[in-house]
Amino acid sequence: MSAHSQGFEIDDWQLRWRGLDLTALPRTESIFALSNGHIGLRGGLEEGEPVDTPGTYLNGFYEKRQFPHAESGYGYPEHAQSLVNVTNGKIIRLFVEDEPVDVRYGETAEHDRVLDFRSGTLRRNTVWTSPTGRRVRIRSERLVSFTERALAVIRYEVEPLDDDLDLVLQSDLLTNEPIAAPGRDPRLAAVLERPLIADLAVTRNYSALLAHHTAASGLRMAAGMDHELEAHRTPRCDIHAEDDLARLTLAVDVAKGDRLRLTKYLGYGWSSQRSTPALRAQVDAALAAGMETGWDELLERQRAYLDKFWANADIEIDGDPEMQQAIRFALFHVLQAGARGETRAIPAKGLTGPGYDGHSFWDTEIFVLPVLTHTMPMAARDALRWRHSTLDQARRRAHELRQSGAMFPWRSINGEEGSGYWPAGTAAVHVSADIAHATVRYLAATGDEHFETEAGAELLVETARMWASLGHHDSNATFRIDGVTGPDEYSALADNNIYTNVMARQNMREAAETCSRRTDLAERLGVGADEIARWRECAEEMAMPYNEELRVHEQSEGFTRHARWDFEATPADHYPLLLHYPYFDLYRRQVVKQADLTLAMYLCPDEFTDEQKVRNFEYYEGLTVRDSSLSASAQAIMAAEVGHLDLAYDYFVEAGLTDLHDLHDNVAGGLHIASLAGTWLSCVAGFGGMRVHRDGATFAPRLPAALDKLTFRILWRESRIAVEVTADKATYRLLAGDPVTLGHHGHRFTLADDPVVREIPEHTPLTPPRIPAGRPPYRRG
Amino acid sequence: MSAHSQGFEIDDWQLRWRGLDLTALPRTESIFALSNGHIGLRGGLEEGEPVDTPGTYLNGFYEKRQFPHAESGYGYPEHAQSLVNVTNGKIIRLFVEDEPVDVRYGETAEHDRVLDFRSGTLRRNTVWTSPTGRRVRIRSERLVSFTERALAVIRYEVEPLDDDLDLVLQSDLLTNEPIAAPGRDPRLAAVLERPLIADLAVTRNYSALLAHHTAASGLRMAAGMDHELEAHRTPRCDIHAEDDLARLTLAVDVAKGDRLRLTKYLGYGWSSQRSTPALRAQVDAALAAGMETGWDELLERQRAYLDKFWANADIEIDGDPEMQQAIRFALFHVLQAGARGETRAIPAKGLTGPGYDGHSFWDTEIFVLPVLTHTMPMAARDALRWRHSTLDQARRRAHELRQSGAMFPWRSINGEEGSGYWPAGTAAVHVSADIAHATVRYLAATGDEHFETEAGAELLVETARMWASLGHHDSNATFRIDGVTGPDEYSALADNNIYTNVMARQNMREAAETCSRRTDLAERLGVGADEIARWRECAEEMAMPYNEELRVHEQSEGFTRHARWDFEATPADHYPLLLHYPYFDLYRRQVVKQADLTLAMYLCPDEFTDEQKVRNFEYYEGLTVRDSSLSASAQAIMAAEVGHLDLAYDYFVEAGLTDLHDLHDNVAGGLHIASLAGTWLSCVAGFGGMRVHRDGATFAPRLPAALDKLTFRILWRESRIAVEVTADKATYRLLAGDPVTLGHHGHRFTLADDPVVREIPEHTPLTPPRIPAGRPPYRRG
Repeated sequence: MSAHSQGFEIDDWQLRWRGLDLTALPRTESIFALSNGHIGLRGGLEEGEPVDTPGTYLNGFYEKRQFPHAESGYGYPEHAQSLVNVTNGKIIRLFVEDEPVDVRYGETAEHDRVLDFRSGTLRRNTVWTSPTGRRVRIRSERLVSFTERALAVIRYEVEPLDDDLDLVLQSDLLTNEPIAAPGRDPRLAAVLERPLIADLAVTRNYSALLAHHTAASGLRMAAGMDHELEAHRTPRCDIHAEDDLARLTLAVDVAKGDRLRLTKYLGYGWSSQRSTPALRAQVDAALAAGMETGWDELLERQRAYLDKFWANADIEIDGDPEMQQAIRFALFHVLQAGARGETRAIPAKGLTGPGYDGHSFWDTEIFVLPVLTHTMPMAARDALRWRHSTLDQARRRAHELRQSGAMFPWRSINGEEGSGYWPAGTAAVHVSADIAHATVRYLAATGDEHFETEAGAELLVETARMWASLGHHDSNATFRIDGVTGPDEYSALADNNIYTNVMARQNMREAAETCSRRTDLAERLGVGADEIARWRECAEEMAMPYNEELRVHEQSEGFTRHARWDFEATPADHYPLLLHYPYFDLYRRQVVKQADLTLAMYLCPDEFTDEQKVRNFEYYEGLTVRDSSLSASAQAIMAAEVGHLDLAYDYFVEAGLTDLHDLHDNVAGGLHIASLAGTWLSCVAGFGGMRVHRDGATFAPRLPAALDKLTFRILWRESRIAVEVTADKATYRLLAGDPVTLGHHGHRFTLADDPVVREIPEHTPLTPPRIPAGRPPYRRG
Repeated sequence: MSAHSQGFEIDDWQLRWRGLDLTALPRTESIFALSNGHIGLRGGLEEGEPVDTPGTYLNGFYEKRQFPHAESGYGYPEHAQSLVNVTNGKIIRLFVEDEPVDVRYGETAEHDRVLDFRSGTLRRNTVWTSPTGRRVRIRSERLVSFTERALAVIRYEVEPLDDDLDLVLQSDLLTNEPIAAPGRDPRLAAVLERPLIADLAVTRNYSALLAHHTAASGLRMAAGMDHELEAHRTPRCDIHAEDDLARLTLAVDVAKGDRLRLTKYLGYGWSSQRSTPALRAQVDAALAAGMETGWDELLERQRAYLDKFWANADIEIDGDPEMQQAIRFALFHVLQAGARGETRAIPAKGLTGPGYDGHSFWDTEIFVLPVLTHTMPMAARDALRWRHSTLDQARRRAHELRQSGAMFPWRSINGEEGSGYWPAGTAAVHVSADIAHATVRYLAATGDEHFETEAGAELLVETARMWASLGHHDSNATFRIDGVTGPDEYSALADNNIYTNVMARQNMREAAETCSRRTDLAERLGVGADEIARWRECAEEMAMPYNEELRVHEQSEGFTRHARWDFEATPADHYPLLLHYPYFDLYRRQVVKQADLTLAMYLCPDEFTDEQKVRNFEYYEGLTVRDSSLSASAQAIMAAEVGHLDLAYDYFVEAGLTDLHDLHDNVAGGLHIASLAGTWLSCVAGFGGMRVHRDGATFAPRLPAALDKLTFRILWRESRIAVEVTADKATYRLLAGDPVTLGHHGHRFTLADDPVVREIPEHTPLTPPRIPAGRPPYRRG
């Protein structure tokens, strides 16, 4: 296949950009980023320039700086955290007869780059003619190893096409690259201008290593490189290292048709505890092991790792090749973000760019972890372990905010609150219930008792404690949670946000259930019968604001009495609204940035009747502008559930193309990992209708008209299941493991060796809901 | 009298501090500040040191700097404004036989300072013995002239007490003095470290002049000094000027018992438009005129000015000498803050200190202007003219916030919004209604048609337009104003704050009434019958949240369903709460920083029945912690109205001693002008029960047990009235002007030449309301 769309070619298992388009560089750097969750390399060209945002990231490696509050207040976070762009090892500069290869000059006759979802590599092929007419072909392939966490490798080949040529290669480690300020306020990035302070610069043979540390956060890192060279003649070689630059220079005459091939091994290590010599040893060891394994074997391991992943996770779509590619692109990047984080956070952008300063938010738990839970559960577990490792910070934060238990940060790298505007940061306390929700889902899907014992139960208990202290009973014995901010950031500091309330209810119920069942853990965590009873009571009596006149739930108390936003008078180019209207005005009106109550109906399906879901969905559809990339997939899921299947498909497409078509015009800063994960959710929870209950998974599959067939796979406990959905039936297959009990449109069945085929019930099409003027779902070309 | 209290001696007409107490310097610098509303000089010692906060201020002379927002947002104010400490002309350094006079060294046998409310001067008398045993008496007296706006004068005398002494005097103009950073965040004051850039430094004979400008706000200023010297021998004299220092040095041998007397004239001028030469000419002229008038005549004019003020404004109290002094101290400083502002703002601290960066807030209109309206109406008019002069900025701000009409800034020097935290700044939109309220009151009391035509009507119309656009009608045809912050800053972004709603209602009604009556103005301002009708409709249908169960109004919608703050568990040293608890927690609870609904019941008395006032007052008394100095006087007024007279007296005392006893521990930063004004309000609106209606003033006087008699004076239209209140009767006297119609406890009467005596109706004592644990009214030692 090679249909063209937005510069990318459509293909089932790869993403190819053909031709040179410098204006696309910013977003392709993100889209072609490689990562294993530990190391991230943006997809820039080996030559180093032209470049939009050079980016080399190590998960959790950040610098901090004092927050500049215009008016300070008690309990405001004092330090901002920012992911550091560390030593860049991607650079391999090429000079052809003294002319630097730079696609801004000369002529680029061929240029294409391929992100291969099965090999897990980024390949490149360029034919470039220098301004003085020398023509070379450059091929490269790079990987960030899923199997060797500290290792990345680049294979780089040059071939003179017309003449023998004198070639010079410079392979660099470059620290403290100049980067553009990320925000409108120049001070925001001031401290990060040269974030790394040099500790060590050494060379040996073809290898070099630079070690640095950050000034304020006190983290240490080392980056090393080693090389294998294949050339027909012996090159002149020089290696050199200074504070912020190490360089291997190779000069060699290459005959026409011959190839000069350099394989560059990169090793990275960082620590808050270990010394520079220890880090140096670690990086040296990673490089030695990588070179011993060798390029070919590393490629094979990478492919084997991915084969296994796709066997567990792949989704097949018949009827929309672009979305087939999009869903695999999405899964590939979700994997890259989460695979080897290993008790570090999964940031909102993964390790694909500097957006949001490299912070993690609630969307990791609500959008990303469900995907990992059902496709790569160890990665979900590790991400939750990171949360667990920050419990002390969360307890301190709760104490500072006069609450019991633990309050997790709205945004963070190191576990401390990193939000600079508390009404839409600290006040978005639902993040703690979101973590509990992901914990519950992970435990339901895996039955991982070890995790429950070591971390899961404590996460549930400490967050439940916070809710019990945060809320209070009013004179009608209703349990209220006042003054909080839900997922919809176009409202803030509201009373009884339903999303928060139902998630807190689930949080307290699950904590109570866990402590009742696991009395050993209850005792260890100091939970007595009184506390369990209190959680149950608070959960039972939770406020659920409802407008009797409109017969819909209120997103928060009083919300439906606010003025409706004047969508008709809002120009199309005034979205996202937050860039064109003050929060003062947005907060006062009925306008929803992103699914809030709608998301609650998906996550806590038993809190709402079917009729309420239909009415609520329609009402909030009319107010939701999707100014957040998190919205479309949540709307897709609920649209599918209530029966707006074509609308669900539209939102699925929007979620899936958010990054590939750069719908929010900010892919340059990194991919929207949660939106990518939402593409999977749209299929599995949307068209597949999957819901996770304490006692199993249920499905309610139903396809939109645009699709002929949808097949998805999930892991459940020790079993691997495939679900194939067509217009009229669903086929459930047990691919591996023990029989499991599942549900299909409300009926339970046991899936064993034989496939189970079930009819899909008829449904009456609904009138499409009204959507805010000027904000229809994204339409392709 | 000379009873001692908190370091001050109690005296009817002056405030004397006897003895040297360096720890009291910070607050006495504020308390002894002199100002005419145009120039302000803090009450530091002439020697320049020891000093806490040197302060020389020119009303409206500010520097601006970029706001450091931790997270920026659309419509956030971009520039902070700060009052500049300008060139200090107060300094007269003395050297006795080469030893600098500094009260931190040697011995100070006598030291007293007197602020004289009738002479309008600050006098000083010090007997100091140098470390080597030389003894001198220093006397000084200084004034900032009420009659010559650009002029201040210091008379300084030295007398050798034991021996002939070689004395050296250095009289300085000193620019860019080092000052301590005002806040916890060191960056807040960074740009103000050396705010003034030198333009000119010249000398002639005994005079010198320095001119400077600010870098960012682009304002220019000049400060000049000239001197008269009286000495028995001719001194050796030197005068010198450089960028930031001008100095007259006088060296002379003074015989025992002789006096060396220096009279220092200071002239100041500033402008955003005029050139440095023009400012130099202006200052030279002020100095020439001042010296021509001479010290004695300036003293006489100052006294005459004050005699007239006291004749219009004085309040006499029988039964509490300390409060007699306090009320005159309060009136004196209110006068100093407002007397000669002349279309500049009256800042929250007057010109007595750097607190709040020299900004003006809503409390000028609600607390200060009523006092000026009834004692010095031209000053009230000028302050409102300042607001009118900033209408363009307020219209721009309204436009930026998507509203019609004008939105005035929460805090400002130059008319632009200067609040760095919008939920308790920009969202406190009631400031616009407060300005309208002060306008209505000024017009009612003065009948100033010229002002109505030139400014008043436009202020009412533009603010009414804003309210009509800010609110909306819900499905029950109730007019709602959502997402705003009332006076109580422990709640924010609430719906239907009653204070805001009733003040907006009054604003719209008065705009409608004015436009109906003055069709010429309506036409000029583009107000048609439709717009008038709309204002009336919005006003009629205004939401007034009420809790039927508790039978009280809700401060804002849902407020009474929030959790009550746990006052019993709050340690006494955790007040003010904002320094010890996060806003996140405060906002969610029933706890009131300062009178909000209670203030509304005073300002809009007809919006509530008598029974509602009693119940509301009691309910909110139980929640109000008075963490703002604005609260006590509002509570005093309403306590008096509903019948808690002894409690009213307690609050009156607290308001009156807020600065003298430094109850908020921040007098060093400047006086609380609104609280001082509130002392007057406590007497006149509280014990006098004065309310202003469109058709006249009414009274409902009633004394607390602590007082034998209270006499106050007010101006009403062209008449001057005195009201004398005793336990059982009130006597109304027309001191000057035409007969006026007044009310006494609900009965109208006409006051002409003969005094009118009226009985005070009996009243049943009420059970004192519950007050938050640990926050009783201030009790004197």
